[in-house]
Amino acid sequence: MGLVVQKFGGTSVADIDKIKNVAAKAIREKQAGNDVIIVLSAMAGETDRLISLAHKAADTPDEREYDALISTGEQVTVTLMSIVLNSLGYRARSFLGFQVKILTDNAYKKARISMIDTGAIREELNKGSIVVVAGFQGVDEDNNITTLGRGGSDTSAVALAAALNAQQCDIYTDVDGVYTTDPNICSKARRLEKISYDEMLEMAMTGAKVLQPRSVEMAKKYDVPVYVKSTFSDEGGTLVTKEDEEMEKEVVSGITYDRDQAKIMVTHVPDKPGIAADLFIPLSERHISVDMIIQNASAAGFTDLTFTVSKKDMKEAQKIVEATAKEIGAKKVEVDDDVAKVSIIGVGMVSHSGVAAKMFKTMADEGINIMMISTSEIKISCVIQRKYTELAVMVLHDAFHLEKKK
Amino acid sequence: MGLVVQKFGGTSVADIDKIKNVAAKAIREKQAGNDVIIVLSAMAGETDRLISLAHKAADTPDEREYDALISTGEQVTVTLMSIVLNSLGYRARSFLGFQVKILTDNAYKKARISMIDTGAIREELNKGSIVVVAGFQGVDEDNNITTLGRGGSDTSAVALAAALNAQQCDIYTDVDGVYTTDPNICSKARRLEKISYDEMLEMAMTGAKVLQPRSVEMAKKYDVPVYVKSTFSDEGGTLVTKEDEEMEKEVVSGITYDRDQAKIMVTHVPDKPGIAADLFIPLSERHISVDMIIQNASAAGFTDLTFTVSKKDMKEAQKIVEATAKEIGAKKVEVDDDVAKVSIIGVGMVSHSGVAAKMFKTMADEGINIMMISTSEIKISCVIQRKYTELAVMVLHDAFHLEKKK
Repeated sequence: MGLVVQKFGGTSVADIDKIKNVAAKAIREKQAGNDVIIVLSAMAGETDRLISLAHKAADTPDEREYDALISTGEQVTVTLMSIVLNSLGYRARSFLGFQVKILTDNAYKKARISMIDTGAIREELNKGSIVVVAGFQGVDEDNNITTLGRGGSDTSAVALAAALNAQQCDIYTDVDGVYTTDPNICSKARRLEKISYDEMLEMAMTGAKVLQPRSVEMAKKYDVPVYVKSTFSDEGGTLVTKEDEEMEKEVVSGITYDRDQAKIMVTHVPDKPGIAADLFIPLSERHISVDMIIQNASAAGFTDLTFTVSKKDMKEAQKIVEATAKEIGAKKVEVDDDVAKVSIIGVGMVSHSGVAAKMFKTMADEGINIMMISTSEIKISCVIQRKYTELAVMVLHDAFHLEKKK
Repeated sequence: MGLVVQKFGGTSVADIDKIKNVAAKAIREKQAGNDVIIVLSAMAGETDRLISLAHKAADTPDEREYDALISTGEQVTVTLMSIVLNSLGYRARSFLGFQVKILTDNAYKKARISMIDTGAIREELNKGSIVVVAGFQGVDEDNNITTLGRGGSDTSAVALAAALNAQQCDIYTDVDGVYTTDPNICSKARRLEKISYDEMLEMAMTGAKVLQPRSVEMAKKYDVPVYVKSTFSDEGGTLVTKEDEEMEKEVVSGITYDRDQAKIMVTHVPDKPGIAADLFIPLSERHISVDMIIQNASAAGFTDLTFTVSKKDMKEAQKIVEATAKEIGAKKVEVDDDVAKVSIIGVGMVSHSGVAAKMFKTMADEGINIMMISTSEIKISCVIQRKYTELAVMVLHDAFHLEKKK
């Protein structure tokens, strides 16, 4: 007997029948003697519909109003869920961000949770209620509605689990767990029984869409065990948890890819201190995130600088960088969005030499040219030509024997 | 220079283009040097869509959750309106019920406003903002979302105008004012320049759909001048205000009709004290409103009791009344929903004799049989056969010369 937080994504609550299916899962957990908190996303497609309304209203919608607009999607699903649960004889209450309350900073569209008041929820749980919380939303100190960014409902769920000291946080989605790589492009992909927070974080940040990276950071920080499960099947699941001995044996746990990448190269840059800052400050001022940055060895006082941005930001980034390039006397700006990033992730990597070499050789054997490389302790990412994405994933999956449970 | 509250209904904000049209009206008022508060309904059709979702989720949706669900409609329009205004260079802020805050009792689906905190709105007005308030919604003392009943946005607007001491409250709708009767069934209908609160209230309660009765009561109580205007034209308009001398000349100001009526007759009821209570208490317990009640002269210890209810309540009312009739020894229960109520309204009526006689004779001359009559100081209502509704309205309009401005 404890407290379980269950989070369901948009495809799990896409219509009334699916909402009833989710209600049945919550009831099962309740009947097993647990207190239950459900966290919901908006119906699949609803957030996109609201965003498109906002952009019909203005090219650059006011961010405060934008957040208050798109937060209605979750308000609809949590109230419908509570209606269903009450009609089945289970006391249930919906909670919006301001009702909990989930306090955030006031960075609209990507707010961070600063505090969760657990009083009202605890009171309802003590009355025997199933508590249904709107994911993705909070309020700042002035009661303005904020949202937590795409996938923010994962973070809502983990944060509630942490604040209320839940025994676990179940993230229900349309796949039955975390895989060694995307099963849609690699038939040998294998579901992982367990994965460490750090590996999951790298996977989420390099292209795996199953969890929002911030939710994994938070789970790690507060040591919340997270189960990734399928809404539509009782089989499978992956536990995201602390590193343990068993995990450390695995050199590489997963392979991810990200085709939402564009590469920008600035050539023949005068190699002076402060040049990189000159280039990247104007980008950050326009809220363009830069991912990988590579500076080639300087020769004769000049250097080449290459970096990647999101595909959607490429055109704007190009304009900004071309202006800067002119000012600082660089020669040329070249852009290329026909690229992809492929990454291998594994906590065991740090204690095994030759992992990088094996990755590069495997791709070379297939004639895949590597344009950029970046590494962390538990990750190696390579930018390659986009058309080789699937091939690279498949040969790397084979090379590191990910199809076999170690 | 003062404060103007402008309320727009669902057809006025049915899509982004219409929202932009409304924004232009608010900007014009702002440019004229006034502080502006806009109160909005949900997009036409949206509240019905949400209600139908609720009823797909459960036959009898939990009322707390139902209110929180349908209040999202107004949240969408106020945020879109603020996005439009901000993009046009006018600072604008949306306010939901909890942000204002608009405090209500906790009678879900028909809550009454008990207090409006004007602090946050005043602060925004002082900053030069156009303030955009979600109509129809409030919160109770525990921060549960409540709604004010159909047409509740009218009440939100008048209540805000009263609380903030606005110089006027403009109710924009799809007609250009209040007419002597429905122009759709009587081509001679004439727009009224002015009408008293009391007359407007009687008209709203007897079938005119232009204003929610509660908003008129509130306007009267706090002496808020209400202008009913068209969103789509700058012509016309009707001022709802205190009685003045000019008005008193008019014996009859308007004619209304209501086809949403059903008549229930209980015959041969033993005429004992408490019989009426026996009949009507079970109905009120099921929240069925009874409109007109007529008790015929009793003969030989028995009486006939006839009353009207909303058409949608007829079947349920019939069942309840049949059970009671049996208990109290009445003979028969007859129902008839092929009826309509036609009313004439005018503050001058009280000082003119013969108005009722003229009404009855006008209908008799056309062979229209009157089934029930009820009167107030400024209103006479008759229940007639439904098929005579339009005829009755037209001949009464002629008989009282409503086509001419007096």
